[in-house]
Amino acid sequence: MKNVVKLLEEYFGRKVLEDLKKCKNPSLELISRTLSNAYFDEKSGLIKLGSKKEKRSFLSLGQTKKFMQTLLVASQIKKNLEENQPAIGTRQLFYLLKHTIPGTNENTFDDQKKESDPIIEDIEVSLDVLREQLGLFAVPDGYIVGPMVAYDKKTGDILDYTKMGLGGGAIPALVEEEFYQIKEISAKFVLVVEKYQVWQLLNQEKFWDKHNCLLLTGKGQAARSTRRLLARLNREFNLPVYVFTDLDPWGFYIYSVYKQGSIKLAFFSEKAGVPRAKFLGLTTKDIEKYGIQKTNWIKLNQLDYKRIKELKNYPWFKRKEWQEELKRLEKFGYKVESDSLVTKKIEFTANVYLPDKIENQDFLP
Amino acid sequence: MKNVVKLLEEYFGRKVLEDLKKCKNPSLELISRTLSNAYFDEKSGLIKLGSKKEKRSFLSLGQTKKFMQTLLVASQIKKNLEENQPAIGTRQLFYLLKHTIPGTNENTFDDQKKESDPIIEDIEVSLDVLREQLGLFAVPDGYIVGPMVAYDKKTGDILDYTKMGLGGGAIPALVEEEFYQIKEISAKFVLVVEKYQVWQLLNQEKFWDKHNCLLLTGKGQAARSTRRLLARLNREFNLPVYVFTDLDPWGFYIYSVYKQGSIKLAFFSEKAGVPRAKFLGLTTKDIEKYGIQKTNWIKLNQLDYKRIKELKNYPWFKRKEWQEELKRLEKFGYKVESDSLVTKKIEFTANVYLPDKIENQDFLP
Repeated sequence: MKNVVKLLEEYFGRKVLEDLKKCKNPSLELISRTLSNAYFDEKSGLIKLGSKKEKRSFLSLGQTKKFMQTLLVASQIKKNLEENQPAIGTRQLFYLLKHTIPGTNENTFDDQKKESDPIIEDIEVSLDVLREQLGLFAVPDGYIVGPMVAYDKKTGDILDYTKMGLGGGAIPALVEEEFYQIKEISAKFVLVVEKYQVWQLLNQEKFWDKHNCLLLTGKGQAARSTRRLLARLNREFNLPVYVFTDLDPWGFYIYSVYKQGSIKLAFFSEKAGVPRAKFLGLTTKDIEKYGIQKTNWIKLNQLDYKRIKELKNYPWFKRKEWQEELKRLEKFGYKVESDSLVTKKIEFTANVYLPDKIENQDFLP
Repeated sequence: MKNVVKLLEEYFGRKVLEDLKKCKNPSLELISRTLSNAYFDEKSGLIKLGSKKEKRSFLSLGQTKKFMQTLLVASQIKKNLEENQPAIGTRQLFYLLKHTIPGTNENTFDDQKKESDPIIEDIEVSLDVLREQLGLFAVPDGYIVGPMVAYDKKTGDILDYTKMGLGGGAIPALVEEEFYQIKEISAKFVLVVEKYQVWQLLNQEKFWDKHNCLLLTGKGQAARSTRRLLARLNREFNLPVYVFTDLDPWGFYIYSVYKQGSIKLAFFSEKAGVPRAKFLGLTTKDIEKYGIQKTNWIKLNQLDYKRIKELKNYPWFKRKEWQEELKRLEKFGYKVESDSLVTKKIEFTANVYLPDKIENQDFLP
């Protein structure tokens, strides 16, 4: 584990101090988080940040405030870590930092989203650590069940995800090693379910028990810690990951965020992506193969068509299989929700569709 | 526990059959769910539905489709219960019902929100049961920790909420007696925390352990099962409920929904309200009393002022204490978020503010 306090000291403290001692304009070199510095790395299959750097210096009219803010965020984080404070939320950090500069009417910070949040990201990128390792957390969302035992290092609790009831286990905000140790896993794969309702039905049907897997839902677009937990399961335990979404561009995109990440959070994507994840469905071919009837279909609207076009242009959708699937979807002209499979039979998803797809490894890449 | 299948049979089946046998126009009498039939009942302190009824009959051009839809929903629910199917989501129910009527181009249902969801509510109201008792669930959201042990009747799992780690226990979608038995509670009260970040910090500080309470968050506006679980804790175990929100009209309203419910879901409010809940803060007086500094204040905007005016006019905010507090808030001209209390000290909320308020029973009604 990295000594984060030492890193903060070196990167943000000592560097500035040296500059000052040499009567130089104090400055920091930060990796640029502009969209133009994000790219899809074919080799790793992940969206990454490039190496472009930008200078942030004190004696530069446009940068002075941001320079000060950067040091304030870094020093508050260092203080909290040194004092062994509990982890706090980004809103709470914002308030800890916000104050009027004595003798002026100027506030250090006025806006969390525009000012303190981006600097947290700057620090994560510069030190190559996640904010959770800096004692910060984001609001979680998502549930997991199945044969996994974890140990909460802060509370000493043993969490057995085969014994979490119909509600399942809450995916915590803090799933980094420092907080959350994955102790035992006998599951053979992770099934990620886009929709909560589908997940809940599968949990009631004990799908995870019958198929010896972990059953996870991020309730639509996944929260930060849901993505990180999934990445840890894949990277540390080599568990295959299959993602089950609706047949529509929104479902496809949710899959791609689990797999490659997103341009907007390129740095986090490196840490939280699961490049070997597979798309289990729904696919256009499934509709025919499983005879999903027309009453389950919903006409694609203009927004859907627009989104399909955008997806076609993302480099991580350039693989032949995806270009073809996107074309087939356009041609088909309908979307089909995973919830709708109950029309075949309530137990169809659990007893036919999923086992069949997994057995035949009938996936998109 | 009610025999729901029998109720469905009598209310929706036998009644229509009798009409048909007598060659009468088949009809149903349903309690009206219009806003004008909802009212605040001073005596119980709950928002309730009045007794106004409306007839829905088959041979009435404007009602024929809805009449058919009502019987379709009722019979699908009955079928699922009789076949002992797992509970399903409202989207899944919609798909089970949606089909093209043979020989026509007409669908039974085209829109979940406008067509099948309202009928679910009609059936809940008519039979005086909750949808969860009809084998339907809504997407949950919220966490709970503290000295409570529950038993999941469907999975057989024992859920000990003192052993849920930093993530806490997920509040399940299904918290009715049929699914979820609350076995042991040694907690003395429930602290409901509006904001996730504040809840998470309190959980890390083991507030629930030090003060022998249950610590619950609904992450803003609470989901259905979060409200029902809270009502059960209050009604069945007589646990006092204290609600901790931001000092702003939005926080006050969230409190009022936990307490009295909402006009829009008047029937559910009767079942899920906690009329004896108390508002713990933040209040305008707290700002002065605890010396919450000006950098924590955010100017009220036009939307905030408008909302304050609306709150003043709600019958359940008519009590003197609330009218005065709303006036004080207008006069103060700022809102203050509960997250911001960390500026006093990170542990201020857990070690000073909350214990002090609870000790002195310094609440608004």
